[in-house]
Amino acid sequence: MRLSERAINVQASPIRKLMPFANETKKKGIHIYHLNIGQPDIETPKEMLNVYNNYDSKVLAYGPSQGLDIYRNNLVNYYNKHGIKLNSNDIIVTTAGSEAIVFALLTACNSGDEVIVPEPFYTNYNGFATMTGVKIVPLTTYAEDGFALPTDEKIKALISSKTKAIMLCNPGNPTGAVYPKEDIQRIAKIAIENDLFVISDEVYREFIYDGLSHTSILDIKKMEQLAIMVDSISKRYSACGARIGCLVSRNKEFIASAIKFAQARLCPPTIDQLAANAAIDIEEEYFKKIISEYEKRRNLVFEELQKIEDVICIKPKGAFYIIAKLPIDDSEHFAKWMLEEFSYENETVMFAPAEGFYATPGLGKNEIRIAYILNENDLKKAMKIFRKGLKEYKNRR
Amino acid sequence: MRLSERAINVQASPIRKLMPFANETKKKGIHIYHLNIGQPDIETPKEMLNVYNNYDSKVLAYGPSQGLDIYRNNLVNYYNKHGIKLNSNDIIVTTAGSEAIVFALLTACNSGDEVIVPEPFYTNYNGFATMTGVKIVPLTTYAEDGFALPTDEKIKALISSKTKAIMLCNPGNPTGAVYPKEDIQRIAKIAIENDLFVISDEVYREFIYDGLSHTSILDIKKMEQLAIMVDSISKRYSACGARIGCLVSRNKEFIASAIKFAQARLCPPTIDQLAANAAIDIEEEYFKKIISEYEKRRNLVFEELQKIEDVICIKPKGAFYIIAKLPIDDSEHFAKWMLEEFSYENETVMFAPAEGFYATPGLGKNEIRIAYILNENDLKKAMKIFRKGLKEYKNRR
Repeated sequence: MRLSERAINVQASPIRKLMPFANETKKKGIHIYHLNIGQPDIETPKEMLNVYNNYDSKVLAYGPSQGLDIYRNNLVNYYNKHGIKLNSNDIIVTTAGSEAIVFALLTACNSGDEVIVPEPFYTNYNGFATMTGVKIVPLTTYAEDGFALPTDEKIKALISSKTKAIMLCNPGNPTGAVYPKEDIQRIAKIAIENDLFVISDEVYREFIYDGLSHTSILDIKKMEQLAIMVDSISKRYSACGARIGCLVSRNKEFIASAIKFAQARLCPPTIDQLAANAAIDIEEEYFKKIISEYEKRRNLVFEELQKIEDVICIKPKGAFYIIAKLPIDDSEHFAKWMLEEFSYENETVMFAPAEGFYATPGLGKNEIRIAYILNENDLKKAMKIFRKGLKEYKNRR
Repeated sequence: MRLSERAINVQASPIRKLMPFANETKKKGIHIYHLNIGQPDIETPKEMLNVYNNYDSKVLAYGPSQGLDIYRNNLVNYYNKHGIKLNSNDIIVTTAGSEAIVFALLTACNSGDEVIVPEPFYTNYNGFATMTGVKIVPLTTYAEDGFALPTDEKIKALISSKTKAIMLCNPGNPTGAVYPKEDIQRIAKIAIENDLFVISDEVYREFIYDGLSHTSILDIKKMEQLAIMVDSISKRYSACGARIGCLVSRNKEFIASAIKFAQARLCPPTIDQLAANAAIDIEEEYFKKIISEYEKRRNLVFEELQKIEDVICIKPKGAFYIIAKLPIDDSEHFAKWMLEEFSYENETVMFAPAEGFYATPGLGKNEIRIAYILNENDLKKAMKIFRKGLKEYKNRR
């Protein structure tokens, strides 16, 4: 029996597909600095880990489909601290941000409908779009201007009778762009005029630098019926393995329908929710330290990239990624070469080729994404190796 | 903006939708015996709970998309004990059995394709079918003959050019039916002749009574390319809140494609996988005790049902559900009435109306599903209240 078209066509993760090459490199005894994945090295807060260590129920039972009440109530407090007033019924706890995006697409779109997404975008949106039969219509943004949102005209030109939503990632993975309030308001205005949902992926909401602040889609007036927010604890508390996120909307019909999809899969993980709940009461000091750590890392990586001739990148304002345009033709080839052919003092560097973050064919072929998720010492060494590698790669043959 | 057709049409859980009525009943101070959900009262094994209590990594990190190696290797041992020879690459660890079913449907079917499913079936198959755009074609089975599989002719009559798979639940939720080896062979033969996948949901594989044994779809010869198995630890170890399952196939192409969907959602919960891994080494004695406990409960509920006039049910052979055909017109009305109007010594009983387990309109309206997941004492009391309630319901007005 032939597999389904969608199974044959669904994109393999461009972030994970170089892993077999990395494993071969490691077998040769070469150390790899992993700048390719968004797995932070930051310690998960003790408050969370204590929940696992102290769990004492006799039966590890199902929770409610929309998430544990105690956690949803506490999430209301979390968002309130960030100036977003919610009711616990506006929130569905999901199995990580991934599931929240799938539920959002299922609820907003039929198979064949279109969603406008600024590119480059989080590559797994492709997988979620394939799963749900949704067509991603890319809105191209550019390294040269820091991946800023294009003009209203360029956005409106992409709207068709099949468009059901605009999906943003803010702060952006892989771009590190933070959209200013005026841009979110622009998007909201276009959404209202054209009756479109705005699905806003805000999993990096706390990771904003240079004293800037975050504008949530839930902050925008008159968007009650159209604003859909996706969130996750994975990066916020360095708890990627806990698989807890949420889907938030003040549109009651939207939430009521999304809950039906949530009921089909019964519930998100129970103890992970309790751990996520404990994380909400962590003091501000925790984030301040982490943000300042990431800001230092960003500065370091950015400065190192600036030192390399013909590399184009604007200093990113949020998340923990940088997209750099390199003076080469094929960054996937370069990434493989760094693993297979190059090492410096028995070490090399792995990063993500950026082509997989674009939907428009051919774009991003000379770009890479660097995740600055290592400590400053390691990052410094990694960037030195990267610079040497790029130089040798350009001069090869 | 109007929601999607699929969001409007997706079935609300017939098991969970009576919960608001139950909450009102509880507010009145009336105790409810819950026979409506499959949440066992059995204690989760200490070996699993110890994993949470002793977890000592500093960073709760992502695992591989296909699941932790240590756990997949150990699952090979688990299936080997049950006579099923596998390679760890045949296994993808999923976020509960639910996700395994979604991945199986996505990989086997395009939107608009058909899957033949014996009805009554696990009601959440409806939700998964809506999510994936798959049409469930019901193959009706009957309470009167213990929900046995119909003849080959009846099955073949449902096959169309759009049919991609037959999906079984064995042992059956909600029927408790255990298909004999000859029936699984019959299905396999039909699948091979018509080039169809067989998706076999075997989450209750250990829950088989009367000394019978289980036939997995993976046991059947010449089915290497067509056999897809779905499993879960939720019921096996009374760990419903852990959300760990798996998708198994010896079809390498199938697994390679399913992994791409798995990559999009990154990974299943990390600590829950470690707990599931610890459960595999639990000695046989644990299961023997539990199976004998469930067997006693089944006998009790079945005998109590036999005492009630005009109730039709055949003794189920597996899982922990019984479907009973009642001498009433509308079992949902009866279920609500039991919550809103009836109580005996300040207690009442909740069960699941069976209509939601059927895809054919009108079927199951006079049937209910009872989950025997309470201890014998409580079950005895619950069945007494049930009998009194049914009698009063029939005589009302």
